[in-house]
Amino acid sequence: MYRTHSCGALRASHINTEVTLAGWVQKSRDKGFMIWVDLRDRYGITQLIFDEERTSVDLMEKAKSLGREFVIQVHGVVIERESKNENIKTGAVEVLVTELIILNDSKTPPFTIEDDTDGGEDLRMKYRYLDIRRNPVKENLLFRHQVSMEIRKYLSNEGFIDVETPYLIKSTPEGARDFVVPSRMNQGQFYALPQSPQTFKQLLMIGGIDKYFQIVKCFRDEDLRADRQPEFTQIDCEMAFVEQEDVLHTFEGLTRHLLKEIKGVEVDSFPRITYDEAMRLYGNDKPDIRFGMTFGELNDVTKHKDFKVFNSAELVVGIAIPGGASFTRKEIDKLVDWVRRPQVGALGMVYVKCHEDGSYKSSVDKFYDQVDLERWAKKIGANAGDLICILSGETNKVRAQLSALRMEMAERLGFRKADEFAPLWVVDFPLLELDEETGNYHAMHHPFTSPKPGQLELLNSRPGEVKANAYDLVLNGNEIGGGSIRIHNKQIQAMMLKHLGFSDEEAKEQFGFLMDAFEFGAPPHGGIAFGLDRLVSILGGQETIRDFIAFPKNNSGRDVMIDSPATIANDQLKELNIKLDTQE
Amino acid sequence: MYRTHSCGALRASHINTEVTLAGWVQKSRDKGFMIWVDLRDRYGITQLIFDEERTSVDLMEKAKSLGREFVIQVHGVVIERESKNENIKTGAVEVLVTELIILNDSKTPPFTIEDDTDGGEDLRMKYRYLDIRRNPVKENLLFRHQVSMEIRKYLSNEGFIDVETPYLIKSTPEGARDFVVPSRMNQGQFYALPQSPQTFKQLLMIGGIDKYFQIVKCFRDEDLRADRQPEFTQIDCEMAFVEQEDVLHTFEGLTRHLLKEIKGVEVDSFPRITYDEAMRLYGNDKPDIRFGMTFGELNDVTKHKDFKVFNSAELVVGIAIPGGASFTRKEIDKLVDWVRRPQVGALGMVYVKCHEDGSYKSSVDKFYDQVDLERWAKKIGANAGDLICILSGETNKVRAQLSALRMEMAERLGFRKADEFAPLWVVDFPLLELDEETGNYHAMHHPFTSPKPGQLELLNSRPGEVKANAYDLVLNGNEIGGGSIRIHNKQIQAMMLKHLGFSDEEAKEQFGFLMDAFEFGAPPHGGIAFGLDRLVSILGGQETIRDFIAFPKNNSGRDVMIDSPATIANDQLKELNIKLDTQE
Repeated sequence: MYRTHSCGALRASHINTEVTLAGWVQKSRDKGFMIWVDLRDRYGITQLIFDEERTSVDLMEKAKSLGREFVIQVHGVVIERESKNENIKTGAVEVLVTELIILNDSKTPPFTIEDDTDGGEDLRMKYRYLDIRRNPVKENLLFRHQVSMEIRKYLSNEGFIDVETPYLIKSTPEGARDFVVPSRMNQGQFYALPQSPQTFKQLLMIGGIDKYFQIVKCFRDEDLRADRQPEFTQIDCEMAFVEQEDVLHTFEGLTRHLLKEIKGVEVDSFPRITYDEAMRLYGNDKPDIRFGMTFGELNDVTKHKDFKVFNSAELVVGIAIPGGASFTRKEIDKLVDWVRRPQVGALGMVYVKCHEDGSYKSSVDKFYDQVDLERWAKKIGANAGDLICILSGETNKVRAQLSALRMEMAERLGFRKADEFAPLWVVDFPLLELDEETGNYHAMHHPFTSPKPGQLELLNSRPGEVKANAYDLVLNGNEIGGGSIRIHNKQIQAMMLKHLGFSDEEAKEQFGFLMDAFEFGAPPHGGIAFGLDRLVSILGGQETIRDFIAFPKNNSGRDVMIDSPATIANDQLKELNIKLDTQE
Repeated sequence: MYRTHSCGALRASHINTEVTLAGWVQKSRDKGFMIWVDLRDRYGITQLIFDEERTSVDLMEKAKSLGREFVIQVHGVVIERESKNENIKTGAVEVLVTELIILNDSKTPPFTIEDDTDGGEDLRMKYRYLDIRRNPVKENLLFRHQVSMEIRKYLSNEGFIDVETPYLIKSTPEGARDFVVPSRMNQGQFYALPQSPQTFKQLLMIGGIDKYFQIVKCFRDEDLRADRQPEFTQIDCEMAFVEQEDVLHTFEGLTRHLLKEIKGVEVDSFPRITYDEAMRLYGNDKPDIRFGMTFGELNDVTKHKDFKVFNSAELVVGIAIPGGASFTRKEIDKLVDWVRRPQVGALGMVYVKCHEDGSYKSSVDKFYDQVDLERWAKKIGANAGDLICILSGETNKVRAQLSALRMEMAERLGFRKADEFAPLWVVDFPLLELDEETGNYHAMHHPFTSPKPGQLELLNSRPGEVKANAYDLVLNGNEIGGGSIRIHNKQIQAMMLKHLGFSDEEAKEQFGFLMDAFEFGAPPHGGIAFGLDRLVSILGGQETIRDFIAFPKNNSGRDVMIDSPATIANDQLKELNIKLDTQE
């Protein structure tokens, strides 16, 4: 063992103890006759001292040679520090070094190993192993470990069994793109990496393992948007003999447990909202309810006047921004510019200032009088001092635009507090979603989701209206989990796949094994999957998942540290019986 | 919720309680006026009763319609059973059913869902979801979960951090074959699936995470021998600032904890044996020490006579089989045939019967007298009543042959007890291993293993003699874990790669990131990896890992249940910029 104590362990009670420490040189201060070295490891920093009076000449020389990030082992005596440092746990003491071994030297690191580093994102990713030495990244990894352990403990105590499902499975073109793996032993054939263990967990239910969980890597070959990773981690869960209520109850329990154990936050039972209501009130199926600013629909109180923009709009909808009545003209113009940015895409914005004296001032005073505006304010729940912002147009687009504005203003106003946690369930999702480009319906959740009881008949006549036994768990404006009660009947599954455009042959080829399994006594079942990367980052009060992944990939799916993906040897290609299609 | 109790929950104390149960029909007995149904779920079996006197006609009819593996929900009252069944936990009671809902019917399963099934391996694999309903398979999965949880708890309590390393990494031709994954976004380039997270865990050590573990899938595209899987699970661990002794101590602790918690077996400190000694005493680097039968080398006590077979042999070595002196001539002939089978490959076998009266009878009485034979018996540790079996020839081959015989005889004699656990450390492995075909040396453990202190100089002159800081943990004749202290110095790593036949360019391309990392303050570090599949099966007292994997692949790497690997769509190939090499 290279050490008797960690660099975070020594206290005043250790004074006069002989100790051996090992770690990295965080920094050293050389006053000529005296040298202080901050020695760092995972657990903290301990100050080492060398001085002319008590340290040999050789040792002083050696100490002077130490550079940043050198790995050293020291032996010495714990002494009381003259000027104590209250900011660190070991600040009462220092170690008077009697022996120093340089275990490894270090080139000057390409960025400083400090909480606030001078290294940019690219450099930090290339030297991720140095980045991990920094407290913020290290603490995130420790935090992730803590969250994972709590999840496992909780679910295991609830009778859930961690079952490992295979990584080399079969490609199913439905959904996102698969990563595929050529098989050498079965030439011309490919495995696929799982987008989720969905079918396997359903087979486990059919196999009688009635409570399953797994913390598991999943893979999606998507064009990466910011903060998406080609490989990501899912907390995958499934239960048999349950209804939706049972699943919600169980995983509300898990989430409440995590909030309590990890964050010390006690949350009562989670509110529930239907998908339709979420869209109506927040324009968003993952509303952040840490703050209000709910939508007020104004169609019926705007139509009576001659304002064409509103009269021709499918939806006229507004929110009230607390205190916004004091915005200057310039500030409001900026807001209008903001909603008109291509990323948001509104054509314009109507506003109403709600003055403290009860009067209103709007950008449409030409068309609407004080009575109108007062009615709007009431519908939106605006108070004196607020600024009402109103958008109009096609329902889906306007909702998305106003939701973006709502989130932006909440951010600016400090309503999105990292230490406040407001979970809610969004339920009754539509079963199908219209793909506006192709005009086809596809599964909103996935093809195994069951429709609500009694809604199967609607599937032919009004497919867009069929509601599913599907639910999302939303935390602070992020979907952290989603699931459904599954189909467990072969005929219904076949009908569903047909509606999703699968031919009988395709359905059989891709999901035949599951539909066959349904014929041998499949129990009712359902489940949920959480995105661990996202969950951990939100619990950690941060926004980017990358900061909670030890070795993330960049937006091109590259690991810039190991320089992967990379070309492979021709022999490898030959063995796999594939070649690069470079001619086309 | 479909049930108030599980099928394993009801006891005499529940009598007169109204309950709702759900599960599978294990079997039903129809006496006409009375029907009993065994209802099964994960937790047990509960007997349901329907009878003419107390059950409605309709319900009787419905109960008669139930087939094996139907999924049903029943409501009823717990009553005392007339003839109690002491063999099951619920055997004191039965449920008099008042309501029966058929949740799903079932075709007749292709094999019986019983502990001893009539289904062959292939059928069971195709319908693995039905196989999992059987107690032995289900119990194995539960057992695996329990072992995983204990490992996580123990390591986490010891300060180890579970860090997820990437699955999409870079191909390194060294070692076994990689599975590769074509990248769509980086055309012509490939990821590889990890054979182990080796380099990443070393980078974590360099990153200051000084205690890491992960239970992680690993992948090897090998031609599958029996009981190998292309994807397998590793308990991967690494520590920084440690020497070999620290690693052994830590993971001896883990193993002792598992034996105690899981099996209730207390084991004192584990014996240690060097690789050389293991080969000398057991002919095997993973000796089963639940029994003796150690090797005795006889070269120096056989050379003085005129027996050419022994005199020309590099090694003459024997073992004593307890009680074997009573074997008939026919039995001994069969043994000789056994060692001459191609799978073992011995040319012949010399034997000596050690009679109870102290005399000896051997197959080489022509050459050796009683004094000789007595000396042999002493060297081998044979007692009166034993049969000495002696093989001779090339050292490595003979050791392997005699080891096979030793294991076979121990098996036959019942010495390999499933409930007895004899762990040991094998240490001081050679650093390099000669590939007899190519004449090249390759790394016995892997290229990152450090040589023993002071042995670096031997690398040029006598590479085969260099010992490594490498160790295996062996349990009951199986290697359950292996590891080493790693190189943490760029120059030594470069030298090692050179010795292994890497050009400077190859070394840089494949491991440049690691060697660069060594230049920024790499601490001394080392670790170990356990094969979880194997560990679980041995702790479970069984031999085949497949029985402890939910969805295993067959010997051709196929999942016969989902029929994978499979062909993929041409569009997929095109997007990935590869084509099948079908012309050659």
